[in-house]
Parts: sequence; structure tokens; C-alpha cells
Amino acid sequence: MATWGTRGLRGSTLEDLINHTNERYKESGLALIQKIPTPIKPINIDKESRHITLAYFDQKSTVDYIGAVQGIPVCFDAKECVSTTFPLQNIHEHQMIFMEEFEKQGGVSFIILYFTGLDEMYYVPFRRLLEYWNRGRNGGRKSFTYEEIDKTYQIHTKHGAYVHYLEMLQKDLDSRD
Amino acid sequence: MATWGTRGLRGSTLEDLINHTNERYKESGLALIQKIPTPIKPINIDKESRHITLAYFDQKSTVDYIGAVQGIPVCFDAKECVSTTFPLQNIHEHQMIFMEEFEKQGGVSFIILYFTGLDEMYYVPFRRLLEYWNRGRNGGRKSFTYEEIDKTYQIHTKHGAYVHYLEMLQKDLDSRD
Ligand SMILES: [Mg+2]
Ligand SMILES: [Mg+2]
Repeated sequence: MATWGTRGLRGSTLEDLINHTNERYKESGLALIQKIPTPIKPINIDKESRHITLAYFDQKSTVDYIGAVQGIPVCFDAKECVSTTFPLQNIHEHQMIFMEEFEKQGGVSFIILYFTGLDEMYYVPFRRLLEYWNRGRNGGRKSFTYEEIDKTYQIHTKHGAYVHYLEMLQKDLDSRD
Repeated sequence: MATWGTRGLRGSTLEDLINHTNERYKESGLALIQKIPTPIKPINIDKESRHITLAYFDQKSTVDYIGAVQGIPVCFDAKECVSTTFPLQNIHEHQMIFMEEFEKQGGVSFIILYFTGLDEMYYVPFRRLLEYWNRGRNGGRKSFTYEEIDKTYQIHTKHGAYVHYLEMLQKDLDSRD
């Protein structure tokens, strides 16, 4: 299988690849996912050019993406990891709380984790993330490793979707029944 | 019943009232709704202060709010209307398309419409909005009026939720069965 690096997509960010995937999902009616912009509060706007000349980063952001997949509310965050160890400090507590509450509302929360050095992507279900998180909370390591990741949740490219995470979402759903 | 204007909430924007409502819904586990920030692309950031000194309004926004309500994907937009006629040009085509596709994904789309002069709020189901929209498209009036609104969809204040739209969401869902 082609790797991420050999697709002529070097230079594309993980966000670019996911946005492109979401476009394909929209076109094919598989899902409708909204990218949530970074909250920025504009203070001064130049009237002529409509450029913002002063703004602040606003309240804490929650997740990167939120939407609907065939009747199911879905939210997720995209994370990159250069080494084979992912420091949990890269996920903020308010993100964990949001994802947990989203699951309590009958939604599905997960992260898409890209090991850039290995050129591999994984769907990490929220329940797994929460296990790592609680381990750190309870005095354990403040990170999780590539070795710990469930490799059956690897995300592949399919049907023109560079980051075909819906396949793993289905697997996640099946595992809950 | 107290009106919006007599609640000591004058000066609060519609967005403030909805955000407050969503906080209450979150606290009581009724819903988890995310405000979607206006998309702004920061260009220059002052390193010391972290203030943004140049930014542009980015791609078109879709809806104001998106989230999960007890297993159901939900999205909506908040609109204000000073007169008793709502011009359809206040809703952009890409918003209509987003809301339509969201419904096709098994979600529920609607707008919260605040007639500021009358101090009344209504839940307008997407299917009604689409009727008005298509009427305008087919040579009819490019607006709809207060008189046309289904008054049984009026939104009230309840249980500390200033804009208790979940009641009308339930009514909308019931009407689909
Ligand atoms: Mg991210
Ligand atoms: Mg609005």
C-alpha cells in the first residue's frame, strides 16, 4: 500500500488531508463534518480592506472537527507525533472533558493520530485515550507509545479519501454492540 | 410570561442568551452544543503579547452552532429580525446547503429567529425554511413574514434556559414520526 509520504502529498498538513477527505465524504454523502476554526476575537477591523488589524486568541478551543455521520454525532481531534511516544500534555483537559461529554450525548469521539516519522495514522477511540489519560492521572506515565496503539485501527487511504477514518469509525461502533 | 426584554437581559445579544442556554444544557446533561467561531486566518502574531496584528476573514462560515442532543446530531443558526419581515438574503445559500446536507446525514437543522421588535423567538424547522427559500427561488417573495411563522414553535424560557429550544426540537422530531 502506498504510504502517506509517497502520495505526492508531502507538504500537505494533516489538516489538509483530513479536510480533503471530508470534502470527498460530503460529495459522496457519507458524512458531513465541519472544521471548527480556532476561536479568534477581532478587535480592530480596517474598514476599507476588511483586514483585521488587531485580534486576540479567544476562549479555549475544544475539538478540531464535529459533524454528523449517517445519524451519528461525531467529533474528533487531529494530532501529530514526531517520535513514537505521544505526550499526553498535547491533549488538554478541556478537550478530554468535551469528548467525554460528547460521548455521553450519544456521540462518538476519537482522535486521528499521525506518527509522522513512521508515516502511519491511527484512529484512537476515546475510551482508549481515556485509559491512557487516567493512567497518567493516577501516577502512571504521562504519555502513551506507538507500541500500545491497537494496530487494527490503522487508517488507510481508500476511494480517494486520503484519511479514510470512517472505516475505523465503523469498527469502533461495531465493537460497542 | 416574562418577555425577553423584562428579564434584566437587555444588552445581552441573542448569541449571549443562546450560549448561556447551552451552558445550562451542558450542566444538566441535556445537550452538548459547540459555538462555531467565525473563521479568521491569522497572518501576523506579535510574539511577546500573542496578539494578532494582521488577520483575514477566512472561508465562508456555515452555521453558528453544532453538536449532539441525546444521540441526535443538531445544527442551527441564530438570526435576528427587527421588523416583521425576514429577508431571505440574510441566509446564505451555502448555509442552506449545509443545513440540507446535515439533515440528509440524519441530523436536525433549524434556525432560532428572534423578532426583536416583538420580543418573540421562534424555532423554524429547516423544512419550513426551505419552503420559503424555494418560493423565493421560484419567483415568489424574497422574504417571509411573522404572520407565516408557526406560532406553536415559539421558544420560551424554562428551567433557567433563556432560549429553551430543546422543547421545540422535540416537537420538530415528534412531527417527523
Ligand atoms: Mg489538533
Ligand atoms: Mg447567525
